[in-house]
Amino acid sequence: MTSASSVRPFEVLGDEECLQLLRGEPVGRMGLVAGALPVVLPVNFVVDGDRILFMTDPGLKLDAARSGDVACMEVDGYDRWSHTGWSVLATGRLRELTDSDEIEAARRVRVRAWAHPYAQHWVELRIELLSGRRIGDV
Amino acid sequence: MTSASSVRPFEVLGDEECLQLLRGEPVGRMGLVAGALPVVLPVNFVVDGDRILFMTDPGLKLDAARSGDVACMEVDGYDRWSHTGWSVLATGRLRELTDSDEIEAARRVRVRAWAHPYAQHWVELRIELLSGRRIGDV
Repeated sequence: MTSASSVRPFEVLGDEECLQLLRGEPVGRMGLVAGALPVVLPVNFVVDGDRILFMTDPGLKLDAARSGDVACMEVDGYDRWSHTGWSVLATGRLRELTDSDEIEAARRVRVRAWAHPYAQHWVELRIELLSGRRIGDV
Repeated sequence: MTSASSVRPFEVLGDEECLQLLRGEPVGRMGLVAGALPVVLPVNFVVDGDRILFMTDPGLKLDAARSGDVACMEVDGYDRWSHTGWSVLATGRLRELTDSDEIEAARRVRVRAWAHPYAQHWVELRIELLSGRRIGDV
């Protein structure tokens, strides 16, 4: 048993702050389930309203989008000396954009895949669950 | 169709370099499957031989360890201006350490959970799959 003073400060973040932190990071870590195994891949993305947009080439992420799989995007920040930090997790279904109008609208948010600058496929993650927390005083 | 010069430099990393990068990061993002949904959580950890060790309190990670679930740990680094970076993914089965001798041995590697400094539970991820890649010239 530990005394109250030994418990680290821990703060649950509200939706607005989660979205703000999500918008501030250029790279997140996407969690997928591929062949029953969890996979985590770094992805550069933008937040557009209540969805996350990114571009990709054929591969795991595009397969997941074409199957309408649920995925999550995690962003975080930490200080390795003070052991303080925060993290945000956004979860939702993936979908490849195929309609020319919606691709045109997506183009206006300007995201280019760092790993695949000439990637042709747009994918959205519609945010259905959003959670975040902060430890310490960061 | 893109010309050869439009393809971004892309390097697959060997096991030794992957382990070295993994050892250099205090925090990774653990991917789990919880109730059929992918979840990504930041975890501070240490590498001890061919396993990853971390401490935790009751919750998703401990549940996964007690079920012997497969999980993955991702670490990465990137430069937001040059759009270069690297990432490493280590995948394997989780297990809670319960034998007093192995807990004693784990104590010697000295890892303390940032979010739960008084966490009592040791968990290992035995690395079975290891992969890494680098884009650009980082």
